[in-house]
Amino acid sequence: MTAQTILFDFSVDSERTTDTKQRQEIAKVVRGEVENIFPQVELAYQMTMEDGFFCVFTENKETMITLRIFQQGLVTLNIEYYLEDGKEPLMTFDTMRTMELVLRQKLHSDRSKYLPPIKRGGYIDIYMTSSDERIIEYDIDALVFEERSPFQKIQILHSKTLGNMLILDELQNIAESDLIYTETLMGRGIENYEGKEICILGGGDGALLYELLKEKPKFVVMLEIDELVMQACNKYLNTICGDVLEKRKGDNYEIVVGDCVEYMKKFVNENRKFDYVFGDLTDIPISGAPVGEIWDFIRTILEHSFKILKPDGKYLTHGNGTACTESLELFEDQLRLLRPKVNFTTSKAFVPSFMEEWLFYQVSLA
Amino acid sequence: MTAQTILFDFSVDSERTTDTKQRQEIAKVVRGEVENIFPQVELAYQMTMEDGFFCVFTENKETMITLRIFQQGLVTLNIEYYLEDGKEPLMTFDTMRTMELVLRQKLHSDRSKYLPPIKRGGYIDIYMTSSDERIIEYDIDALVFEERSPFQKIQILHSKTLGNMLILDELQNIAESDLIYTETLMGRGIENYEGKEICILGGGDGALLYELLKEKPKFVVMLEIDELVMQACNKYLNTICGDVLEKRKGDNYEIVVGDCVEYMKKFVNENRKFDYVFGDLTDIPISGAPVGEIWDFIRTILEHSFKILKPDGKYLTHGNGTACTESLELFEDQLRLLRPKVNFTTSKAFVPSFMEEWLFYQVSLA
Repeated sequence: MTAQTILFDFSVDSERTTDTKQRQEIAKVVRGEVENIFPQVELAYQMTMEDGFFCVFTENKETMITLRIFQQGLVTLNIEYYLEDGKEPLMTFDTMRTMELVLRQKLHSDRSKYLPPIKRGGYIDIYMTSSDERIIEYDIDALVFEERSPFQKIQILHSKTLGNMLILDELQNIAESDLIYTETLMGRGIENYEGKEICILGGGDGALLYELLKEKPKFVVMLEIDELVMQACNKYLNTICGDVLEKRKGDNYEIVVGDCVEYMKKFVNENRKFDYVFGDLTDIPISGAPVGEIWDFIRTILEHSFKILKPDGKYLTHGNGTACTESLELFEDQLRLLRPKVNFTTSKAFVPSFMEEWLFYQVSLA
Repeated sequence: MTAQTILFDFSVDSERTTDTKQRQEIAKVVRGEVENIFPQVELAYQMTMEDGFFCVFTENKETMITLRIFQQGLVTLNIEYYLEDGKEPLMTFDTMRTMELVLRQKLHSDRSKYLPPIKRGGYIDIYMTSSDERIIEYDIDALVFEERSPFQKIQILHSKTLGNMLILDELQNIAESDLIYTETLMGRGIENYEGKEICILGGGDGALLYELLKEKPKFVVMLEIDELVMQACNKYLNTICGDVLEKRKGDNYEIVVGDCVEYMKKFVNENRKFDYVFGDLTDIPISGAPVGEIWDFIRTILEHSFKILKPDGKYLTHGNGTACTESLELFEDQLRLLRPKVNFTTSKAFVPSFMEEWLFYQVSLA
């Protein structure tokens, strides 16, 4: 059960939209086509502006249709109605396509567009946004798991083509389709993990740990604060994490449930050092000044990580969407402020479930 | 210059939306919040339904805001205005986020959503749809090339993160980000092209030819009908096609401009046979019965391809989005009808510029 909003628009010569009479003519043409689909349609309201036109049509007070003519040469037509489960939509894709083409011709439009119906009010959110705030509609067909932990809202959603997806506080984290994410984060084929000591900060989905263990490290310790994330991923994402979240420890790894900063402090006291530290925690905030709780957290993580890294060790982490240049620059500024000084390189990969290209960092002492 | 349409929705207890008085209360709350952003807002029209409520607010007859309350427990709020180039949007992402959160709280909503502004009427179309009709907003920032050939509308669009993209008749074809597409189509690492004779049907973007030539084939002949596509790709997609479209022929390849069916008939007459034939032509139609011009074309291509293949040869082609099961089944039905009989296998890859997983076919004589 969702409200369906269907948006059409038509570009027309602005000479025709600046003239009151021609605007009336456009409205008449649109109404005619709307009547073909919604035969009972009536004009409910109209507003004549100096520079445009707006009206509301309705069919049985159920389907509401607004038409607006902008003097700049644009006609927008919005159709909205409520679709009960199991009912047929009032407009099929064929009807929409036909309506677009017919109106395009009748309005002498040189550019037109309709968007597939926007489904509003559904319990599962199928519209997510990229890091640069673009709309992406997912083929999500089931809510597999939803629970609130003391730290975050945890959801596992099922996508028809991406498999199960982990969503934390409404943000895409990782999906069954995303081996490339983990491989780029760890630089598979570039870094050599054999015999190495590794610390993962976060990484609750278990994918990084699972892939690292295939590379024969000496020991991996993973510090994850959220028990519930691990339980959910163990159950619903085991294609990407294998049995590492189930077992929690093995000959060459251990998962510790706790605050990674506290554990890093402990490692500093014990003088325990690693060849690699992975920052697999929350994303860099996408905009704004580098202040506030999250940026403080990022700085704390960076500083402590270098305290537990061997001199030739590396800190590997994910950044943000490559389109998010402002946010990436802020993060790089933080790297440049680190003392002792560090150098960094980057790598990138298109991550299927993010539907965008993501940037990853490799940071080492200068 | 585009019209901006911003869509908010709030789920509320349906007990509150079935009662006329409570609906008035909801409308009042929404109006209060709208006034915070649009101080001059006025009620232009309202319609009371037996089972709902609808009203139109306007600020200066420029910003039109429609509010609808559905008895099923859903409130939709649509804001639409025209944004001239260089002007600041009336709502920033912070304003939208705040409005959503405040209204969510004031309406005692347990689920709410806003979509980033939908930009309508722009000359470049940034909204494309997946094969299963999902909305995907691209980060396209430039129209690099646009021309109509005798066969199709050809566009090269630039995406900030995907690079240049070839769009034919409004459909994504290939982008600079899509090596995986070509590699999966040709089964790189699985098929051995060394010393082989190959025929490409279509392939005007040049990427397949370019990648095949790296595998040391004996000879590749490419049959492309659209000269203009090749000129555009040679100029704007040379990261994926190298110089093959520029040179048109070499020691081990030749591009022929013409109708591939005619040339296949010629090859049949000459008894010229190939180890591989690639169907790199138009996509399978996404729905409907397997009738009509395009399906006839697909059948013709398949039949002729097997006439020019050696007995152990392979026909390799792209199918459609893996979500498009209906269309894929229709194609497979066609394969099953072929005589002599054929076997087929499939492979798939997530193609960045398609923003979805695509299916590829490998067909050989049974």
